Amino acid sequence: MSGTPGIDAARLGRRLETFARIGATARGGVDRQALTDGDAEARALLAQLGAARGFRVEQDGAANLFLRRRGRDDALPPLLLGSHLDTQPTGGRFDGALGVLGALEVLESLEDAGLPTPRAVELVAWTNEEGSRFLPGAMGSQAFAAGALDPAWLAARDGAGTSLADALARTLQALPHVPRRPLGTPIAAYLELHIEQGPVLEREDVPVGVVTGIQGTRWLDVTLTGAAAHAGTTPLAYRRDPMAAAAAALSSLLGTVMARDEAARLTVGRIRAEPGSVNAIPERVAFTLDLRHPVLAELDAIERAARTAIEAAARDARCQAEMRTVFDMAPVAFPPAMADLVEAAAGEAGLAARRMISGAFHDALFLARRAPAAMIFVPCREGISHNEAEFVEPRFVEAGARALMAATLRWLAAPIERL
Amino acid sequence: MSGTPGIDAARLGRRLETFARIGATARGGVDRQALTDGDAEARALLAQLGAARGFRVEQDGAANLFLRRRGRDDALPPLLLGSHLDTQPTGGRFDGALGVLGALEVLESLEDAGLPTPRAVELVAWTNEEGSRFLPGAMGSQAFAAGALDPAWLAARDGAGTSLADALARTLQALPHVPRRPLGTPIAAYLELHIEQGPVLEREDVPVGVVTGIQGTRWLDVTLTGAAAHAGTTPLAYRRDPMAAAAAALSSLLGTVMARDEAARLTVGRIRAEPGSVNAIPERVAFTLDLRHPVLAELDAIERAARTAIEAAARDARCQAEMRTVFDMAPVAFPPAMADLVEAAAGEAGLAARRMISGAFHDALFLARRAPAAMIFVPCREGISHNEAEFVEPRFVEAGARALMAATLRWLAAPIERL
Repeated sequence: MSGTPGIDAARLGRRLETFARIGATARGGVDRQALTDGDAEARALLAQLGAARGFRVEQDGAANLFLRRRGRDDALPPLLLGSHLDTQPTGGRFDGALGVLGALEVLESLEDAGLPTPRAVELVAWTNEEGSRFLPGAMGSQAFAAGALDPAWLAARDGAGTSLADALARTLQALPHVPRRPLGTPIAAYLELHIEQGPVLEREDVPVGVVTGIQGTRWLDVTLTGAAAHAGTTPLAYRRDPMAAAAAALSSLLGTVMARDEAARLTVGRIRAEPGSVNAIPERVAFTLDLRHPVLAELDAIERAARTAIEAAARDARCQAEMRTVFDMAPVAFPPAMADLVEAAAGEAGLAARRMISGAFHDALFLARRAPAAMIFVPCREGISHNEAEFVEPRFVEAGARALMAATLRWLAAPIERL
Repeated sequence: MSGTPGIDAARLGRRLETFARIGATARGGVDRQALTDGDAEARALLAQLGAARGFRVEQDGAANLFLRRRGRDDALPPLLLGSHLDTQPTGGRFDGALGVLGALEVLESLEDAGLPTPRAVELVAWTNEEGSRFLPGAMGSQAFAAGALDPAWLAARDGAGTSLADALARTLQALPHVPRRPLGTPIAAYLELHIEQGPVLEREDVPVGVVTGIQGTRWLDVTLTGAAAHAGTTPLAYRRDPMAAAAAALSSLLGTVMARDEAARLTVGRIRAEPGSVNAIPERVAFTLDLRHPVLAELDAIERAARTAIEAAARDARCQAEMRTVFDMAPVAFPPAMADLVEAAAGEAGLAARRMISGAFHDALFLARRAPAAMIFVPCREGISHNEAEFVEPRFVEAGARALMAATLRWLAAPIERL
């Protein structure tokens, strides 16, 4: 193999437009939640586009949809490229779709160039990455990585009472001529193109993010309990004010944890006071903590620091602190060789790149359990995502597809197959 | 006049029991909201008890109910003693009732002793002090002080759709034989016995609080607006986090304002974050501030300090701060001569006393606009009020009535009539 076949940026732009019409919202976004009619329509269009180019179309029991472009030795496990087609209820045009249609652009450009590859290159559209209609998110990639759907998921129902089992069966039946393949067939490696969903690349005007890993995330529910009392009649010495404890702890944590470590994230998205009367010291203040770090030991240290600060503030205010970890996902580091490969590929394609950690979850998180995985990020406007205003400049769409093509060719030239 | 006629603590205790049965709740409290059938029943019982002792019973257009024990010179404006009979929906047995029945005990004990007074002593039960069914609270005393009911109040409706005008007419008609008097007849001075509704007297084991004034109160609605963003993908440098601003400002204010000045109160009873997602930096954090101080200039200074701290914290977090004063009541100082009188009276009665500021509003606040006013506080258990668990030890009930009797006699011996 030699040279880099170009990608057709105009075609990719048109494809993004076409798919954005499926589930289009009045405000320019997309509502194409997993396993809905819109999702089925997008899958059918993808299957049709693949079949038209002679790619083999298959689906597995989790409704993950595959397009396979054969390789010289078709017995070798394929290089897999992909992302997801489902969106949030008020989602954007790029979260997921860019990675699927970017992969399609790579397959089609290889086909346009008549370039044989040493082994098959496959595209995958994972089912239900968003998890907004049925939990959990990244369902298709999790099932693929595990080799099976978790039976507990099948009974889940959406807001209208439809079970996941029914929605899945309906989606599979919507493509009656597409053959089934087993869940979790072998793959050699996985590459995913995605929008950053954060502000860093755009602010730095860097077109390519080389994702070295995905942060670990831990969610805590914190409740501080003091004593409700009259705002006017209760002097400081007699107060047991959980708001004072919450403010002290949160001020300290929000003011120090991220300032000390650029890789750390600490967010308080919810807070409430009970009974919630303007002229009563609250009895209880409850809030959430979202803690993230790419290094497990550091995530542990942040959690310890948070617990210590909250305990201390509660003690100072003569309150009780109750803390519960309600979600815990360990960090994932992609193999360094895969990140090196993406970085070198971007360089070959003449694209500036920076290494970065993904702050959000992605299907690649689960694929990384099965095979060497890597992700390529491109900037999105103001870091906005999960929002109808989500937008990626055409030059960054093109950069993403070119980087994916370059990484694909580089991987095929010197495969990294060992985790 | 000489000597102090005793009061009958056992009779007062029985009266409190009797009135507590009108609107009694299953959990030992009282639900006798203003202008309900229960309120009318309590008024009827009070009228009957007064008439039985030969006191003249009258009501005004605001349904304030008066019992008058004649004096030697009945043309002089009377000394007025009283409080209110209405309660919160899950109120206690003492908030209001103690002041009315304590005043009744003074009138009856004067009668028992056959002691003529230089001028009339009147008891009043003010209408709708609590304001829980119809706004505003302290309605009867406000109308009395102004000489008229505010016509805007009459259209107010309770949760069931009953207008204040209808409820008032019904309550007045429930005592058809009780003559009407004009609103705002002249009075010489006003004394009110009330539970502290705070923890200070009980913690210090002091039976009598000499109330020197009522705090000024100011309520602010504060909204901090930043930018919603993904908790995982947004580094500190790109955050505009209103929670960080709120925590910094509130930690500073709750940690300093009250610590620097024992008379200051600063309470945050409500807080919420929007959109309120565990994994999103909030776009908006809104909270309330309840600020109190007995000295207007100090209350102003606290409000300025709060606004400055919030503006500064918002600036640091690149957020916008919006602050609105939604309630503003200036402090009231009772005439020092009246507080001196109450303190001396408590001493004469052998009761330990301490001067204090009232943290809550009371009818006396409005009476103070018309005539020299004073309040006597007694301890309530754990400072709990507006609660079915509200409780006053019998020794403190007795102390309150004795202090009220002593203050009454002392005022009658040397009237303070000038504001």
